[in-house]
Amino acid sequence: MRYTLSLSCADRVGIVAKVANFLAERDGFIVESAQYGDPSTSRFFMRTVFTTKDDHPLDLKAWKEAFKETAGLFEMDWKLKSNLEKTKILILVSKASHCLNTLLNQYATGTLNVDVAAVGSNHLDLEDMCKFYKIPFHYLPITQATKPLQESKIFELFQSYDADLLVLARYMQILSPELTQKLQGKAINIHHSFLPSFKGAKPYHQAYERGVKLIGATAHYVSDDLDEGPIIEQEVLRVDHNETPEELVASGRDIESVVLARAVKYHVEDRVFLDGRKTVVFK
Amino acid sequence: MRYTLSLSCADRVGIVAKVANFLAERDGFIVESAQYGDPSTSRFFMRTVFTTKDDHPLDLKAWKEAFKETAGLFEMDWKLKSNLEKTKILILVSKASHCLNTLLNQYATGTLNVDVAAVGSNHLDLEDMCKFYKIPFHYLPITQATKPLQESKIFELFQSYDADLLVLARYMQILSPELTQKLQGKAINIHHSFLPSFKGAKPYHQAYERGVKLIGATAHYVSDDLDEGPIIEQEVLRVDHNETPEELVASGRDIESVVLARAVKYHVEDRVFLDGRKTVVFK
Amino acid sequence: MRYTLSLSCADRVGIVAKVANFLAERDGFIVESAQYGDPSTSRFFMRTVFTTKDDHPLDLKAWKEAFKETAGLFEMDWKLKSNLEKTKILILVSKASHCLNTLLNQYATGTLNVDVAAVGSNHLDLEDMCKFYKIPFHYLPITQATKPLQESKIFELFQSYDADLLVLARYMQILSPELTQKLQGKAINIHHSFLPSFKGAKPYHQAYERGVKLIGATAHYVSDDLDEGPIIEQEVLRVDHNETPEELVASGRDIESVVLARAVKYHVEDRVFLDGRKTVVFK
Amino acid sequence: MRYTLSLSCADRVGIVAKVANFLAERDGFIVESAQYGDPSTSRFFMRTVFTTKDDHPLDLKAWKEAFKETAGLFEMDWKLKSNLEKTKILILVSKASHCLNTLLNQYATGTLNVDVAAVGSNHLDLEDMCKFYKIPFHYLPITQATKPLQESKIFELFQSYDADLLVLARYMQILSPELTQKLQGKAINIHHSFLPSFKGAKPYHQAYERGVKLIGATAHYVSDDLDEGPIIEQEVLRVDHNETPEELVASGRDIESVVLARAVKYHVEDRVFLDGRKTVVFK
Repeated sequence: MRYTLSLSCADRVGIVAKVANFLAERDGFIVESAQYGDPSTSRFFMRTVFTTKDDHPLDLKAWKEAFKETAGLFEMDWKLKSNLEKTKILILVSKASHCLNTLLNQYATGTLNVDVAAVGSNHLDLEDMCKFYKIPFHYLPITQATKPLQESKIFELFQSYDADLLVLARYMQILSPELTQKLQGKAINIHHSFLPSFKGAKPYHQAYERGVKLIGATAHYVSDDLDEGPIIEQEVLRVDHNETPEELVASGRDIESVVLARAVKYHVEDRVFLDGRKTVVFK
Repeated sequence: MRYTLSLSCADRVGIVAKVANFLAERDGFIVESAQYGDPSTSRFFMRTVFTTKDDHPLDLKAWKEAFKETAGLFEMDWKLKSNLEKTKILILVSKASHCLNTLLNQYATGTLNVDVAAVGSNHLDLEDMCKFYKIPFHYLPITQATKPLQESKIFELFQSYDADLLVLARYMQILSPELTQKLQGKAINIHHSFLPSFKGAKPYHQAYERGVKLIGATAHYVSDDLDEGPIIEQEVLRVDHNETPEELVASGRDIESVVLARAVKYHVEDRVFLDGRKTVVFK
Repeated sequence: MRYTLSLSCADRVGIVAKVANFLAERDGFIVESAQYGDPSTSRFFMRTVFTTKDDHPLDLKAWKEAFKETAGLFEMDWKLKSNLEKTKILILVSKASHCLNTLLNQYATGTLNVDVAAVGSNHLDLEDMCKFYKIPFHYLPITQATKPLQESKIFELFQSYDADLLVLARYMQILSPELTQKLQGKAINIHHSFLPSFKGAKPYHQAYERGVKLIGATAHYVSDDLDEGPIIEQEVLRVDHNETPEELVASGRDIESVVLARAVKYHVEDRVFLDGRKTVVFK
Repeated sequence: MRYTLSLSCADRVGIVAKVANFLAERDGFIVESAQYGDPSTSRFFMRTVFTTKDDHPLDLKAWKEAFKETAGLFEMDWKLKSNLEKTKILILVSKASHCLNTLLNQYATGTLNVDVAAVGSNHLDLEDMCKFYKIPFHYLPITQATKPLQESKIFELFQSYDADLLVLARYMQILSPELTQKLQGKAINIHHSFLPSFKGAKPYHQAYERGVKLIGATAHYVSDDLDEGPIIEQEVLRVDHNETPEELVASGRDIESVVLARAVKYHVEDRVFLDGRKTVVFK
């Protein structure tokens, strides 16, 4: 069994020493670890994967209790998890199926270490796919008038399922600042362009107009400011002058699915840290 | 020996037939050919590489004369070249050496089928490198007051060397609309970002601020509108949270050099066509 | 509506002229076309996408009849299709779901212009997924003793469904030469390595042992010689020293799915031509 | 000023704690750090970049002396360097200039933190380029008969210049086991293929024959076994059916230069560790 300790705090001398001592005293055997201090934000980030002597399971509750002292010393944001703990996710979609399809397949095959609590949507198109994967589906229609109500339902779902992460898998509604503020660092969106290029609507059409030679996809944490949230992962794909906007849309689906799934993977493996407007991602 | 016929014209039925007949009647043996009709601009583009029977050299002058009839029929922009003809280029640089270094090495080794007529610069830093490659170097200092004069010197050089192409290899001055208009489709710039992201100054610093996970470089034809010219080629490079703006600058040099050299290669091989705000590139 | 004429034949002067004349005489409006003559095999390849005047549908049967003369002249292998014709595919799988999942989603969303006739498998694991997509599923168990019989059933299915293409979507059985010979140029396999590296079994474990920094996937036509068939498409993915063979297997799924789907797309769009041991792919 | 401590040793509990304590006691401020324990070789690897309080320079000699105790405890291979220390490299070339050209440009611009001690070659072609960069050039002609003598001269040069690293920048001679054994982990070669594909001579011609859709380049430590040394870095480039072997050779130069320079950069920044037949590279 493997355990992951991830943390961030204001940067100063001695953090790694304290944490490493904590692990060493308890026979924690470091498999993989990374640290980074961002000079521009003065924040320090650390992620450590460790096993135990003879691989016997440790008493997580006791360890967490014990770590509180070290954590308090540095005012850390921290998490300690075994690799058996699955991150609980709530997925929002609209009509496009490709991202959901990839996420659910990776969930079903165990590629993604998640528990898909439920899927919500403002359309009924993807209900069948959820049934196939035996995932609860919530129909959440929305009009301008019902938006506040619909969003409160989303948040209720998030809470009632005790979800850790909201994944916007080509959900075509813009979340209000009220909701995004409650979900800071807990909601990942996929934008179908190489941000900051082509923000907003119809990015592939914008890309076509501009004549770019590569199109992209960007997974980012949702923030108040549309398409301005901290970027987690990006990927690009070479395109040609002969591709119509519709063909760009089709080609782009592959990288959207891959980039979103990869960002969710990084998140659930505690590889991603918010660092001001940016992220630190330990790969 | 190989010949390249490249052309563009208003799109209509029968262009390929006419051109192919012209070649077939003269025993032109098509090695490689590509055509594209852009529905959004109603322009047609064609590039054909052919050899001759028994590989005996053809009378280019006579062929050109003969092709005028077909060309006139469709009001074509066209070019017919043997692969022995080298494109004559004038390069402008400032202080950064990496792009010039790659261009001159590819010129010297024959990788780029060009004849470097001369290098001009507003600084003296790269004079020695030009001497090493036995390329004339022109010192063209510039102040706000002398800009019109300096630019007229650039254009004089371009004309006196009978240059076909101006390559801005990290030349850190913005050309005036007067000059760019005279050089439409004949001047290639390298911008050190993945356009349209991060236009203008210090793109790597902008990229750092935004926290992108890939940086890019873009080679484009120069137009009146800074960093808005038709894109010829782009490339990206994965970067990490721990890279400082200065490290991004250093990492980016590799792709800047490669992308600029590739764009020049496409241009001199007559693979690139202006198509409104975009380019058609037959690879 | 768009039509695609694709052909190959022994190379000589005048092929493009003949074909282009044929199209021009019938008001065929070329949207996109590419030609290539391979000097090493002396074969010529051509793919032309065209529309008709005022976009009125053409009489495909009559056109095909008429084209026979030109085709006969050059002893062409050729195909003329409208973009409404779907390629009928039979898919073989074993237990792994990721490739099938991507293919069926792209089929259902119309991203792939195919009609999935049926899925066959030596295991029952993916029967449910086929049901969800309303695709007939054929259980084809296999032992060493029953291999000839099982393969004859596969071929019967292929014929009875009147399939155009067999897609091996991580089907973990090696087809016998008897079967592969009957399916030359009509069966695409995905191999989970960057061929010719790591042929045969457990390529990700081989890649781990060798310590490569990129892993790959290769889609190729099936031939007698295992993993030696003509390559259609390849892609790679950067990996890290800290990835276990199991993690490489998981990471590789993304590129396997993408590469296989892309190869099928190229094939059904008549972009791929067999050229000796290689392929010509017009993108 | 920044300091880098890099080390490897047999894996056990408490290594990070000991090292981090050592740093913390001396007010070492960790900027960036990575650790990895390879279960397949039971080796542990660590690289830490740190600064000092108020950025005052530390007494490296005293630190090294002090660290010996910790190092001894774990029988570490270790290195402690300031970022002002340049790695001294000896470069071997034959006739091809592109890799040398990139290395020397990156050296001259400070992109690579190296001191190029000298260049040796079995040909005179690149003597002028070395003169331009004011680098000593040693002509080391070789015949089958003189090979042992020539190699002893290479090693003498390596020793007399007190070089840290030998870089084979398209040096077209195979080093004998006698020499490679003396240079284990201290000699980097660039092979012009995506290893393990296309070992040995004329890899681009092999790639052409096989019809691969991507070509590659591999930088690796030199070992007894030709093209089997531990891989440091690899990159690929998309190619097309219409590229001749000669064009593949030309296209490949870009990635050869980039990959070799990147591998040298990783090495001189102490990011690379030998781990059996593989490398650990902390990026």
